[in-house]
Amino acid sequence: MYNLTRRDEILRGPIVGWDIGGANIKAARINHEGGLEVVEVPFALWRAPDRLTAILKHTAGRVGPASTMAVTMTAELADCFATKREGVRFVLDAFSSAFPAEESWVFATDGRFCSIAAARANPDSVAAANWVATAMMVSRHFSEALIVDVGSTTTDVIPIIAGRVAAAGRTDTDRLRAGELVYTGALRTPVAAIVRHLPVHGRQCRVASEYFAIAADAHLWRRSIDARDYTCETPDGRGRERRDAGARLARMVCADLDVLSDAEITAIADHVSGMQVRQISAAIRAVLSRWPRGARPVGVLAGQGKFLAQAAAEANGLSVHDLADDFGAAAARAAPAAAVACLLQEMSATELLRE
Amino acid sequence: MYNLTRRDEILRGPIVGWDIGGANIKAARINHEGGLEVVEVPFALWRAPDRLTAILKHTAGRVGPASTMAVTMTAELADCFATKREGVRFVLDAFSSAFPAEESWVFATDGRFCSIAAARANPDSVAAANWVATAMMVSRHFSEALIVDVGSTTTDVIPIIAGRVAAAGRTDTDRLRAGELVYTGALRTPVAAIVRHLPVHGRQCRVASEYFAIAADAHLWRRSIDARDYTCETPDGRGRERRDAGARLARMVCADLDVLSDAEITAIADHVSGMQVRQISAAIRAVLSRWPRGARPVGVLAGQGKFLAQAAAEANGLSVHDLADDFGAAAARAAPAAAVACLLQEMSATELLRE
Repeated sequence: MYNLTRRDEILRGPIVGWDIGGANIKAARINHEGGLEVVEVPFALWRAPDRLTAILKHTAGRVGPASTMAVTMTAELADCFATKREGVRFVLDAFSSAFPAEESWVFATDGRFCSIAAARANPDSVAAANWVATAMMVSRHFSEALIVDVGSTTTDVIPIIAGRVAAAGRTDTDRLRAGELVYTGALRTPVAAIVRHLPVHGRQCRVASEYFAIAADAHLWRRSIDARDYTCETPDGRGRERRDAGARLARMVCADLDVLSDAEITAIADHVSGMQVRQISAAIRAVLSRWPRGARPVGVLAGQGKFLAQAAAEANGLSVHDLADDFGAAAARAAPAAAVACLLQEMSATELLRE
Repeated sequence: MYNLTRRDEILRGPIVGWDIGGANIKAARINHEGGLEVVEVPFALWRAPDRLTAILKHTAGRVGPASTMAVTMTAELADCFATKREGVRFVLDAFSSAFPAEESWVFATDGRFCSIAAARANPDSVAAANWVATAMMVSRHFSEALIVDVGSTTTDVIPIIAGRVAAAGRTDTDRLRAGELVYTGALRTPVAAIVRHLPVHGRQCRVASEYFAIAADAHLWRRSIDARDYTCETPDGRGRERRDAGARLARMVCADLDVLSDAEITAIADHVSGMQVRQISAAIRAVLSRWPRGARPVGVLAGQGKFLAQAAAEANGLSVHDLADDFGAAAARAAPAAAVACLLQEMSATELLRE
């Protein structure tokens, strides 16, 4: 089943794994020493889809040379595309344009790689497959695990049961219903999508349903992240200092820093963060119900919102393992990109060529 | 107290009332026959605050000539301003630049008018005063009334008790806490700020916390509004046909029109609309508690989301009165603009000159 000669023909040099999202592009390169180099480039795809090819090339230039590419994506959901199928094909075309000379393999939700042509012909099979890659990588190390990967925008909650990826859903919609995808993240989530009320002067206040503040503002205020971690745009186009974030949080209750004290902003930020933990925690609880009663898998933490993942896992009584201990901090932040690179390297030529 | 001569000196010609919001500018002109002419101009102030003066002039050109202006605003909350005080002053300056020759009076939350200079000196007194104008106008006709004014973005729930405006809050923050301001509207409210779950194939599905769809998409799909009423931008920059709205609604559960049927989109739209009615209804219930038990004021309906106001008022057992019956449909959609014009015309010179 394992054919080293053919494999070497296919994988001639360093591999770069790609996770192409709607708001971030992540590339993880396995260098000659077997180490992982990771580059993240924030890119609001829906604003300028035609720039995708250029951004991919730019990202490749930063992560370093490769002859083989492994690709997964979630960008097809961006609303510059009328349908997800259109989105998948657009991303694949941009990828081919960016890397015409490199050998490219697209990761599918069945855990296998296919050619770009095959992916184009069956776009449903490769849409939103990135979490499967993370899950397969983790399943090599843990037979009973609950992966909690909190990214900038979304959270994946993935059960590994008896060494197998035991997800109930394959599409984003099915995963949302199952609690395996929670649309909350460490940076981009609008505060109005996290909470209905916020504390003001010790009482609950309804919030403004405007794009005034995002999760990153709460976490920056709480010092869970710093200004360099705040890689997305700010809602008001202002700065990434704590005071800027505080002003944005105040605006969620139609107030400003003229009227709210630092302690009151802290109460607001704590509430936002706490509600995110609750939402992730509820999803973990739902997914934990797949195990026999009393079983407690290890919580495997990943993503830039690892601090949220940890709080939610521990709220469910899980002992936790940090994916950064295995792959380094950068690769754990960009787990799907690292995973597709590693999986492609491990995969035998026989398997690759089966399709 | 009423000095016709002085009043005529002050109010020499037609009056235009202005309601300057962050997303819409509304102007209502009282013509020589006493009729109201209304113009609404959607304008995303936070994107291009420097264009405000030009937009005001453009709006004035459409509504017709006036020698006297009555102004109220909510635009100071827009996040192009660091604080609300800065916002009030910016709007006043833009207004002065647009209409240097006209006599301008700014409406304050105490129900009186002041000069632009006085408003500049005390910006808190004129911030978000527009609902007071509506309330004062309605209080001339109803002694026990609950006004439910559902605009594009927000809903005002204002009690008139024993002929007086009996609001618990004067600032937006206090009004949010009291249930007198609900940040939900007929057009601009993001679906992710309205619902946490949506029905998909008969089961509840968590929603994407993205700016994929807004209230207008649900109401357009349900035919509560038509494409001409959809005056704000669409989230994806696509069209205002029902099918466009359906695609946006599908994306809220990470789906598209390839996988969801019309009946499923209808279930989603119905749920969004129903949740808005529930939120407004809960606020009405909170405000109704100010009356003695069993008292049932008349529900006075206004705004472009009147259909939501009516459903929420009737859910609380109120008999309803349509403000359009008194002032015409256009003025009832832009109630604060019509109200400041009418109030300024009624106001005696003595009162105007007191400050």
